[in-house]
Amino acid sequence: MTLSQFEIQDINQTVLLWLDEVRKRTLIAMQQHLDISIKHDARDLVTNVDRDNEQFLNAKIRSYDSEASIVSEEGFGDHQKNMQGNVWFVDPIDGTMNFVKEQADFAVMIALYIDNEPVLGWILDVVNNVVYHGGPQVGVFANQLRLEQPNNDALSDGIVLLSGARLLYGMFGYDKIAKAALGYRVIGAAGPSFLRVISGRAVGYSSKMMPWDFAAGQVLAKTLGLSISDIDGRPLDMLSSNIVLVATNRAHRDILMLHQS
Amino acid sequence: MTLSQFEIQDINQTVLLWLDEVRKRTLIAMQQHLDISIKHDARDLVTNVDRDNEQFLNAKIRSYDSEASIVSEEGFGDHQKNMQGNVWFVDPIDGTMNFVKEQADFAVMIALYIDNEPVLGWILDVVNNVVYHGGPQVGVFANQLRLEQPNNDALSDGIVLLSGARLLYGMFGYDKIAKAALGYRVIGAAGPSFLRVISGRAVGYSSKMMPWDFAAGQVLAKTLGLSISDIDGRPLDMLSSNIVLVATNRAHRDILMLHQS
Repeated sequence: MTLSQFEIQDINQTVLLWLDEVRKRTLIAMQQHLDISIKHDARDLVTNVDRDNEQFLNAKIRSYDSEASIVSEEGFGDHQKNMQGNVWFVDPIDGTMNFVKEQADFAVMIALYIDNEPVLGWILDVVNNVVYHGGPQVGVFANQLRLEQPNNDALSDGIVLLSGARLLYGMFGYDKIAKAALGYRVIGAAGPSFLRVISGRAVGYSSKMMPWDFAAGQVLAKTLGLSISDIDGRPLDMLSSNIVLVATNRAHRDILMLHQS
Repeated sequence: MTLSQFEIQDINQTVLLWLDEVRKRTLIAMQQHLDISIKHDARDLVTNVDRDNEQFLNAKIRSYDSEASIVSEEGFGDHQKNMQGNVWFVDPIDGTMNFVKEQADFAVMIALYIDNEPVLGWILDVVNNVVYHGGPQVGVFANQLRLEQPNNDALSDGIVLLSGARLLYGMFGYDKIAKAALGYRVIGAAGPSFLRVISGRAVGYSSKMMPWDFAAGQVLAKTLGLSISDIDGRPLDMLSSNIVLVATNRAHRDILMLHQS
């Protein structure tokens, strides 16, 4: 099913208004006491802002799209079993540890897939007040600025972004990837890492992620002609965790070869 | 020798005006073709902006302070052999790889030491238009906002910043430090890392650095009651490279113990 340009623009503008409201709510909440809880361990945090943002966004989605299924991080979504129909992905605060400790390098992310096809994605950089948004039918924008496809740089010519924990514990061949790159950085959150790849500031990014961590980034990356797959080169499973690799076409090939060697 | 409040304020305001000019020159240069050269290897870059900023700042310093000695990165300073008198430190672009590749997370840094005592330090975050500045006689400010001493958090309660290359190659016990922290990040530049510790967004930072990399950060960190030393707990040598450790008092103790264990 393909939406008309008019329908796409209506969805896009509607979500941008929600995100504007989410941004204001988040900034206000950051000035107040945060209620921080631990999920699985001390490094996996959730706050009242994560929950409030998710409830707010999920309610907006359900009221706007009566056929919506929602896959979201904090438990207010659906138990989605397939990718048929209108499937929305919501990450109400991506990078909660950065949100709590750094007050920077976190994001709010939304994506819409219809019958498993990427339609639109939104990554809100709250602190810098920039929404990266778009999809295959409209292109990718940073607020009003249209983004071009990033230079097709090789791994050895650019900065690669990696999951710090997995690198530290010798997983997924990340040490080989880091050594082959011009440099590597650890940002600690998916959305801010995707943004750097999408805007050509990094040649690649890899981490183990849940669907809400990569759904929006995948829409934007594919639209810009970047390569995205799991670390073995297979398409991402939209309903479970994946070791995601997003990169320029050359760096993607470089990393797959390193990973298989 | 102690300067009067009037003298301190005059120096501070004068340097802030230079930095305002450096910021404008840097932003203009970023819109134009960068002339990028390799220094020691492909990961050690220098650009025309590094050189232009250093020549500009060194000329300003020599014209303002006829007794100045200058320790600076790109070769326009003096061959300083001791810390007597007015010693200025200049890093014209700290984080040149980030400057070239990310257009973010780089800084311009200046510091003034008199007879080996820290007097004033400045770290300009070009992209975000914030100068972190101050010293023992005046306090520390982010632009006009006075900074308080950060919470004295332990390593296990905060984010630690580490040199990516040294972590990757198993140096300095950085893997133990990363594992003991709540999380770790790799930023790839000294100034932006110091800023995160100074503003309480990270509990500590360690990397091997040259004097221009840590001179300004040390002034601000000491003024805010943070701990700074080499990784063995000794005072920093202002005229050669050091494995620098800056942290909250608790995280500093935690890291020294891990390093010695």
